[in-house]
This record gives sequence, structure tokens and C-alpha cells, in this order.
Amino acid sequence: MQLSPLEIQAALDGKTKPQGSLGKLEDLAAQLARIQNTLAPCVDRQRVCVFAASHGISAEGVSAYPAAVTAQMVLNFLAGGAAIHVLCQTAGIHLRVIDMGVDDVASPLPNDHPGLRRAAIKPAGTDSFIRGPAMRLESCEMAMRCGAEEVERAVADGIQMLGIGEMGIGNTTSASTLCAALTHFTPEQLVGRGTGVNDATLEHKKATVRQALALHAGANSPVEWLAAVGGFEIAAMVGVILECHAQKLPVVIDGFIATSAVLVAHAMQPDILETCFFSHCSAEGGHQLILDFLNVSPMLDFGMRLGEASGAALVMPLLRAAAHLMSDMATFEKAGVSQQSP
Amino acid sequence: MQLSPLEIQAALDGKTKPQGSLGKLEDLAAQLARIQNTLAPCVDRQRVCVFAASHGISAEGVSAYPAAVTAQMVLNFLAGGAAIHVLCQTAGIHLRVIDMGVDDVASPLPNDHPGLRRAAIKPAGTDSFIRGPAMRLESCEMAMRCGAEEVERAVADGIQMLGIGEMGIGNTTSASTLCAALTHFTPEQLVGRGTGVNDATLEHKKATVRQALALHAGANSPVEWLAAVGGFEIAAMVGVILECHAQKLPVVIDGFIATSAVLVAHAMQPDILETCFFSHCSAEGGHQLILDFLNVSPMLDFGMRLGEASGAALVMPLLRAAAHLMSDMATFEKAGVSQQSP
Repeated sequence: MQLSPLEIQAALDGKTKPQGSLGKLEDLAAQLARIQNTLAPCVDRQRVCVFAASHGISAEGVSAYPAAVTAQMVLNFLAGGAAIHVLCQTAGIHLRVIDMGVDDVASPLPNDHPGLRRAAIKPAGTDSFIRGPAMRLESCEMAMRCGAEEVERAVADGIQMLGIGEMGIGNTTSASTLCAALTHFTPEQLVGRGTGVNDATLEHKKATVRQALALHAGANSPVEWLAAVGGFEIAAMVGVILECHAQKLPVVIDGFIATSAVLVAHAMQPDILETCFFSHCSAEGGHQLILDFLNVSPMLDFGMRLGEASGAALVMPLLRAAAHLMSDMATFEKAGVSQQSP
Repeated sequence: MQLSPLEIQAALDGKTKPQGSLGKLEDLAAQLARIQNTLAPCVDRQRVCVFAASHGISAEGVSAYPAAVTAQMVLNFLAGGAAIHVLCQTAGIHLRVIDMGVDDVASPLPNDHPGLRRAAIKPAGTDSFIRGPAMRLESCEMAMRCGAEEVERAVADGIQMLGIGEMGIGNTTSASTLCAALTHFTPEQLVGRGTGVNDATLEHKKATVRQALALHAGANSPVEWLAAVGGFEIAAMVGVILECHAQKLPVVIDGFIATSAVLVAHAMQPDILETCFFSHCSAEGGHQLILDFLNVSPMLDFGMRLGEASGAALVMPLLRAAAHLMSDMATFEKAGVSQQSP
């Protein structure tokens, strides 16, 4: 039987604190209680999945970094030198990296690393979506299925909370185009500097998004847009988000790119927001707009713009704390503490 | 030799991430590097000190809870049922509670609990500061000394970061009066609902603050104001903040009351801000004003208003993470990752 919101609120209000005095932590605890359908939620066992993929659009001069960095950074994740590795290590979060199609000709990825799943549908990643679709619709569905498999595996492994993020040079262009297609916002509003492009590249990036929107104007559904202008890592995250909702596994969303995957999943099935936690508001300008569009509020505003699930990993300890407050705090009655004066 | 800001910035910029892409985490890491004077800062070993004291002003009808709750909550801290215990437990933070004068006639505190230091200068706490001074100047200085001793003990114990907060029914009235005395803000701007007073009590609380400001208008220094209208737990925190600066121990400030202690310490010695980290902006209206007055920005805005160092404990894992990012991330060179295109 599903707990009612009143039962959850009563449990929080019985704890030894003035009502509502833990602020947003109480909202987060209540959401975890609803998802897990218990007054003693627990999300101690956490995993971060970083989905990595190469983007054909990166050959169109939209990025500050060369496309080769995608594979180099995956190697850096595995070697322990990247921000996401450090954050997961510090917080006791299990890290998995999923190769969704990373062009690794120049920097070969290992086939037998325990932290890396090779799940490429097309090893070189997407095609340039100003010349045709980024991927075939069947490939897009296969990538979403790869994401769903990560949720199945997490549940089988006893994981209680998943964090998701990405690596893919060129993917802010992909995410901006998806967001423009699925909302009323314009490329001018949504396109930002990504990893740090200069003014000229920023203008070129906006023009590229406009060109893509015109080329694919015939796309008829969120999934068609995802195939037309998305990335394999974005499609995988859409699959994660849908499956987390189906399996009632709380999922922590990283930055702008991960939120674009929420936007696609939300367009397919609006109630997926119930299992999503929004970690932070990125410095990428479009992110706040999409968070507002979804009517959700992020936990942190740290001006981060790294990706890699770094924002998700950062807040996952806070979500552990929110669950423990609800599960472990004493009630006024049990602790013998006087209640508020009438 | 003191590291220069340029050396610290260069170390951050060499890490495998776009420059500045970790946002506020980079600012926090740089501050830790300056304080510890190393490019590999570490604040893994953390302690929270909760200073508790009774307030004579609570007999003047300014609180939503009876004064007896102060001692009851200290017992709840020690028994493990309070929010601060749960937060410290979850994050691996050592918790100490310091009795700075808790009236425990109705709920006796133990003399031999390893987590409680009995350091009362006046066992019943302060006197009502609308009838005279809250404490004698010598008592105030003794309380500050108790706080400094906590820093000495922390350093001796190998603690690398201290979080501070308080428990004391009535202490938002004390903190509001201190803040009004030491800034240009009015009682109307500073006085809030504390643990949750109703409209009538809120007006009475404002009048009480105005009355106290008039009664003690002759106070001539920050310490004289602290003695006149402060609390023993606030005085202890002033001592902590000054000594943390002297010993270069990073200190994490909880909410409105702890920030009022920063305000006093800052009025005595402005450079103490360099060792302070501001955890969150409280729902208590005066807090944002004082943070702005000090020109500091808090890490979280969670609408919390519990005290107990709960906000400090919540962000301390994030500060651990900030230090590890600076200390443990690979450089572009070491990881073989290509730099930004020119």
C-alpha cells in the first residue's frame, strides 16, 4: 500500500526539530520516502554512471577542445585522475563508465577494465546532424535500452541511488538543439559556451543549432528528435531515467546535458520527474531555463560546468543525509523533548 | 613561505577540466590551499562542536519552545536522536557538545559522557538582558577562552576542520540584538521567527530587542556588546573563530547565531573571515543581511533554520571533496589529455 503524503509529513513533523526547520532536506527526504514507499528511506549504496560518446557535430567546429579528448578523458576516468573519480572516491560512491560509442582510434579504450562497459552501438559515435540524422531510430532505441540495462544491473547489485552524467566533446550543441526542439526557447537563449568557446565559435554554434532545427523540422516525436540531433550518451540517459521511474530507483541528474535527457523522457512520460533529483544549476545558460521549464529546483548553484556527473556525485552525500534524518532521528515522544508552546 | 594566489590558481588550472569549470568548488579549494599553505589541502578529519547554553531572555516570552528544551535537546544530542548526531554519523564527522551553562535542574546532564564537556561559567546561563547585562565582562572573556580551548584540543587531536553551531532556546533574540548593535540594520529587519513564533510573539520579540538596545546603548566595543546581550554559547563561538584564525584551522559556520559570532569576531579582527566557510543561508531573515554585510556567500540555500550546527555538518563533506579535487586530480600533462584549442 502506498504511503500517503500526510503520513510522510507526520513522520517528519514528529522528529525532534521545529516543524519544517530542515527546509529542503525535508522535501528531499519526503520524496525518497514516496519513491521507496517507506518512512525509513535509505540511499546509502550509491553508484554513478558516466555515459561517454563521440559526436559527429564536433567536426563542425563547435567546441573548444578537440574530439580526441572524449577518449582521453574516459582513460582518465579509469586511471583515477578525473574529477568524477575523485568525487566518487571521496564520497564512497561506486563509479561505472559506459562507452556508448567513443572514437578511440587514437587512444584505445581497454576491453577488460572492470569499471568500463563497452556498449557502443556505432563505435565512432554519431554523425554530424547538420548533414543528416545523428543516428538511426533503431540505434537510438538500442542506446536507450543500454541505459535501461544499467538500471537493471544497479538494482541487481543492491544499489539504492544512481547518479548520471556524461562525457562527449560536442554534446552541449546536441543538448541545446534537443532543448530548442522540445521547448519554446530559442537557440540564442539556449546555446552557451560549453567547455569554453570564444565569441566567434559561440555564434557559429548558434547558427549550427538553427541549421539543425531547420534540417530536422519533420521530426514528429521526442524520440525522433533524439535520434535526429541527440547523442548516444544522451539516449542512454533517457533510457536510464525512464527505467529508474519504472523500477522506483532514485536518480540524480547532473548538469545541462543530463537535464536535456530528462526533457526528452519527460516529453514521453511526464511522471518520470517523481524519481529524479536535480543536483545543481550549471553555468551553461540554457540549464536554468530548462530547469524552470520542468518546474524543478536544483540543490546547488555552484557555477559548475564540467559534466562527468560531477554535480550529481557532489550532492549524493546530501541525499544520503536527508534519508538518514528521516530514518534515524528520534521523535519528541521517544526523546522526552517538550513540544512547541501552544 | 606563503603560496601565492597565482601558484594556487595555476595548480587548479593544470587539472584535467576546463578552467574554472568546477565553479565554487575551485574557490573553496583555493581558500583551503591558502589556509593550509599547500597545493594538496586535506580536511578529511572533521569535528563539529555544538555549544549549548540557557538564556535568561527566554523567560521574557520571546520563544516558541519552553526553556527546558535546551537541556532536553543536549540529552538528545548525546543519545543520538538529534539531527546533528545523524548528520555527523552519516558523514563520519566527530561530534562534541559543550555545555556553556545549560540550566539542567529539570533534566540533569551527565558529568562523565565522553561526548559532552561541562564548561559552564554560570550553570543557569545568562541573565535577562532587558533587566541588566546578560553576563559579566569577565564571564564573557572566560567563555571566549573555553571556545579557544576547543580549537587547541581539535588541533591536538589532529582535526583538520571544525564546524560550529549552537543550542539555546532564546538565542535568536540575543543574536538579533548583537547584529543590530554592530551593524546599521534595524530590529525590524533582523528579528525573525526563530524556531517558529507567532505574529504576536514576533512583535514582542522586536520590542524586546529595541528595549535591550536602549538599555545597553553605553556599550563601547564588540566584546562589551557580547557581554551585554550575548549568550555563553555565542561568546564561546567568538573564541573559536578568533583562535581558528590564529591556528589556521578552517572553521565552518552554521546559521544565523553562529554568523552573529562571526560578526563580533570580525568587528574585533576583520581578517578572521579568511579561515571561515559559510555553510548555508538560513530561513531566519536576518541571516542573509549579515552575510551580505560581511560580503560572504554561503554554500547552500536550503531554507534551514534548526541550528545545532546542522547546516555546517551538511556541507562539510563538500569541503572534503573540494580539497580532494585539488589534491588528487591528474594534470593534463600527467593524464595525456589534450588542452583547449588555441
